[in-house]
Amino acid sequence: MKTIGIVGLGVMGGSFSARAKELGYKVIGFDLDQNALDFAMEKGWLDEGYTDPKEALAKCETLILCLYPTLMEGWMKENGEYLHQEAIIMEIAGVKSSIMDQLETLIPEGRQLVSIHPMCGRESRGIQFSSPRIFQNANFIIIPSSQTTAKGIVEASSLAKELGCGKISVLNADEHDDMIAFLSQLTHVIAVSLMNTHDNDHLVEYSGDSFRDLTRIAKINEDMWSELFLLNKEKLLTEIDAFADSLQNFRKTLEEEDVQTMKDMFIQSTQKRIKFDR
Amino acid sequence: MKTIGIVGLGVMGGSFSARAKELGYKVIGFDLDQNALDFAMEKGWLDEGYTDPKEALAKCETLILCLYPTLMEGWMKENGEYLHQEAIIMEIAGVKSSIMDQLETLIPEGRQLVSIHPMCGRESRGIQFSSPRIFQNANFIIIPSSQTTAKGIVEASSLAKELGCGKISVLNADEHDDMIAFLSQLTHVIAVSLMNTHDNDHLVEYSGDSFRDLTRIAKINEDMWSELFLLNKEKLLTEIDAFADSLQNFRKTLEEEDVQTMKDMFIQSTQKRIKFDR
Repeated sequence: MKTIGIVGLGVMGGSFSARAKELGYKVIGFDLDQNALDFAMEKGWLDEGYTDPKEALAKCETLILCLYPTLMEGWMKENGEYLHQEAIIMEIAGVKSSIMDQLETLIPEGRQLVSIHPMCGRESRGIQFSSPRIFQNANFIIIPSSQTTAKGIVEASSLAKELGCGKISVLNADEHDDMIAFLSQLTHVIAVSLMNTHDNDHLVEYSGDSFRDLTRIAKINEDMWSELFLLNKEKLLTEIDAFADSLQNFRKTLEEEDVQTMKDMFIQSTQKRIKFDR
Repeated sequence: MKTIGIVGLGVMGGSFSARAKELGYKVIGFDLDQNALDFAMEKGWLDEGYTDPKEALAKCETLILCLYPTLMEGWMKENGEYLHQEAIIMEIAGVKSSIMDQLETLIPEGRQLVSIHPMCGRESRGIQFSSPRIFQNANFIIIPSSQTTAKGIVEASSLAKELGCGKISVLNADEHDDMIAFLSQLTHVIAVSLMNTHDNDHLVEYSGDSFRDLTRIAKINEDMWSELFLLNKEKLLTEIDAFADSLQNFRKTLEEEDVQTMKDMFIQSTQKRIKFDR
């Protein structure tokens, strides 16, 4: 069975390890934090674990980088030369163009980058929140780099199926980042902004499902999301402005008591939302 | 056992009827639509049903008005004189100040208005979506009118407990409408505005839980919600503006790449949101 290396044992890295072991792969974990390695070893999620990647990287035919986005470049600079000769390198950053540009120039001849985005996660951070079930039915996006071969795409796609993911799609990096700016980043901006709208502690006891649903993702890992937002800054600003315009359009119909236009907006949102039902 | 009258057999009226029958009350339904009455009778949710309220209103010691907000005043003008001599009248409109002001002046001597707001519902309309379970653990708010006696409050509170509601609170109409403008109406404005932000049909296949959760309530009854928004216009405009400010604050930190302030906003939203966990 193939050997998979997992770099960075947080929520996602731990979940990849756990699931890969279930599937029968040989799994090697890399993390600077010995505690994370110990945790994974005790859980039986790893065959081997290293704080220094150099010694074992050459064994990993597939390598999944589960680092914070801004750490990927430095990691590759330091360790690229130790990669398996034909390694397929996947990285799971939540934004792609900038990260992939950085990595492509650093990955030595013979290896290839195939970026992936399994659309799942946890609101809490750390390997103790990992689970092999996290991938179940999650959308999975493959983002080819200029290095990616057909073999690389097939490998990523097979992995997604084995993980238990639902719909698998292929997008280029720019399309991915457009999509993520709207569906994921803008929704987090809205949830955070709503949660931070004036004092509202005294309303806790009256809140219903709609407020809870809208603010669930206002619990957010400040280190990772600030990185992701800055790496996709221009696209996210565009989406915030488009949403702010839509909000002001609605405000205007209310201010002017333009009931027919308001009803049309409700009918439109209802029809559009129905398409997103599972 | 007491007789409860239900006026308006939509989702909420049907659910009240179904639950009241379970509890052993005698239940009389009133609706202009014979089909809704037939449906409720066939389900065993009513003892009697009438399209013309006049004949049976005098039997109803408790009356629950489940009409669209703007229909309440007209109904009371037409039928107030036929009410039970000591009727306790509850109405379930989603906004209170304006509706209660209208009703109080029309309710004849001896009867009393005790407004209620069971915080539950369905995204679809019509009695076919009713269920006696809709009230289970829902927050329930009692809003006394100038007519309300201690007996009236006790009655509303007992009903809430029997229905299976969770937390029961008492608010005045102005506090209620402030709270609802933020927790319920603003959240619907946000969901509708997000759903109506540029074309997004092509993103259906990539959407994850965060987008689905934020837009669930973009499926909305345009007739009822346009009424509710207009009846609470000033308070809702204030909340939209407060949220728009919060959104622009966030936008500014991104534009200026002020990472520390952005992280502080994330930390604040996380801490605030934790208080809203059930």
